[in-house]
Amino acid sequence: MRALWLLAAAVSLSAADGDQQFASIGDLKLASGETIRECRIGYRTLGTLNNAKSNVIVWPTWFGGRTENLLPYVGADKLLDPARFYVVLVDALGNGVSSSPSNSPQRRPFPKVSTRDMAVSQHVLLTRVLGIQHVHAVMGISMGGMQTFEWITAYPSFMDRAVPIIGSPKLATPDLLLWSAQLGVIEQATDPLAAMRTVQAMHQFALQTPEYRAAQTPSTEWAKYKQTFESGAGERVKAEDWASQLRAMMATDAGPASAVKAQVLVVVATQDHMVNPLPAIAFAEQIYAPIVRLEGNCGHLAAGCEAAKFTAAVRRFLER
Amino acid sequence: MRALWLLAAAVSLSAADGDQQFASIGDLKLASGETIRECRIGYRTLGTLNNAKSNVIVWPTWFGGRTENLLPYVGADKLLDPARFYVVLVDALGNGVSSSPSNSPQRRPFPKVSTRDMAVSQHVLLTRVLGIQHVHAVMGISMGGMQTFEWITAYPSFMDRAVPIIGSPKLATPDLLLWSAQLGVIEQATDPLAAMRTVQAMHQFALQTPEYRAAQTPSTEWAKYKQTFESGAGERVKAEDWASQLRAMMATDAGPASAVKAQVLVVVATQDHMVNPLPAIAFAEQIYAPIVRLEGNCGHLAAGCEAAKFTAAVRRFLER
Repeated sequence: MRALWLLAAAVSLSAADGDQQFASIGDLKLASGETIRECRIGYRTLGTLNNAKSNVIVWPTWFGGRTENLLPYVGADKLLDPARFYVVLVDALGNGVSSSPSNSPQRRPFPKVSTRDMAVSQHVLLTRVLGIQHVHAVMGISMGGMQTFEWITAYPSFMDRAVPIIGSPKLATPDLLLWSAQLGVIEQATDPLAAMRTVQAMHQFALQTPEYRAAQTPSTEWAKYKQTFESGAGERVKAEDWASQLRAMMATDAGPASAVKAQVLVVVATQDHMVNPLPAIAFAEQIYAPIVRLEGNCGHLAAGCEAAKFTAAVRRFLER
Repeated sequence: MRALWLLAAAVSLSAADGDQQFASIGDLKLASGETIRECRIGYRTLGTLNNAKSNVIVWPTWFGGRTENLLPYVGADKLLDPARFYVVLVDALGNGVSSSPSNSPQRRPFPKVSTRDMAVSQHVLLTRVLGIQHVHAVMGISMGGMQTFEWITAYPSFMDRAVPIIGSPKLATPDLLLWSAQLGVIEQATDPLAAMRTVQAMHQFALQTPEYRAAQTPSTEWAKYKQTFESGAGERVKAEDWASQLRAMMATDAGPASAVKAQVLVVVATQDHMVNPLPAIAFAEQIYAPIVRLEGNCGHLAAGCEAAKFTAAVRRFLER
């Protein structure tokens, strides 16, 4: 009986694979000089840390996303095999799970965070909470790719490899146009839910190419389609969190490229209308990194639309 | 002395070439069943009406534009030669010159207008005010192209030729996304000027392709560029007029193509992110109309960026 009780206690101490977990990382000093007090970081782990602690892959979330959105990428036949890797999915600051405007004490305005701050918070999680001082790889999609660029310049010796996917080391002017427009909508809004419905229309406009959208959704289905993307807008991701991560992306400025020590595979979508691929391509060329170009017209969502090509290229790079 | 006085009177009665003029066309019944009371239409004429009245070209304004914006297209070496054509430029309803929310009596809310209503108002101007019962051509750019599609299906025998340029007979879903987002910004705004600055960011995002904007404006120039497109936003074109024309475009539904009798040249920009070219191409194919494809990456502004190809094709079509 006693042995059984001990086993149960041990199990209860370690969350099951993929469960949402939280770590308190204390006060987090930000690049701006401000501080997030009692910073909380959400994360999930899948797979098993090997004895050499050499099989860790860190993957922060995309813009507006949560670690639960990344679970479908981890599995025996998926992008990351948990039999091989110990995968640490991390909720980026401002996503409503980790410390964010929506869950911070209202007596303190939530400070402005950057994608660099996100990487720093994740580095604290790994080194001080999880006891990991070196990882096999850092990777991420979209804003996760921006954080990956920040990681490889902020902590060049921390990882062997890195895969920024449809991300950017520094946003191009068209990206700034899109995000500043979305930010304008939220900042001027009196009704945050109505604002987020408008933001969603703009977001959908840029997620894929117009050709793709025109082919997928005849205008006769407009009303139904509109209802789909407006449904729940501003509920799962609050307007204030969206704005916080918008500002973080706009300020992204990873560098210098000369600091990079990791082997890097840069994945871009050449028809990406949401995160322009040119800065990532220029960065890749500076460090002689190979580039995987996804060229279809589904734009920013090319990693999904061209999943076979994408998955094969990234798996090969991480597993070789 | 008396002869001189008579001459002066005659001159004052006919405006000089290109001057802004106005016509009162009385109450205008709209497609919705509503009425614009004492409707006023702005217009400008250039060139001379020939004796056979066979050299008229009608050109309504684009979205947010005024007839003054079309003056650069008319001249001896320009798109339309006033020595050959009698050009009637017309201010579309809702543009702040013709009857619009911003200049209508505030005791009456301005009714919802459509691009069909715009064409109808212009038909009244021509037939009842200017005494013109048939024209050589109707043409227009962007929303002017939408009005051209409405013209050729509403008044099939009224023109010999028509040139809808980067317009659409019925908007595609990506266009509806863009315009509904802009409309959302204005409808939710408490400060119309701030709203129009946000709308301008969104508008700039879609006017050209992201590649074009990234190449033209390095992100280091972002602050300066932002100031440029925000400057005067909401002043020349009022938010309520912008919204009125947005709603008009979104409701565009010209047809049926089988009604068309004019010879039509359809000009599209294949990389247009603001007015998707597919509906115009499909319309052209239905009526066996030739298509001029502008294929550069400056998107919706291709007629300007590819001016030589554009001008040559349209002039040849109108003059042959």
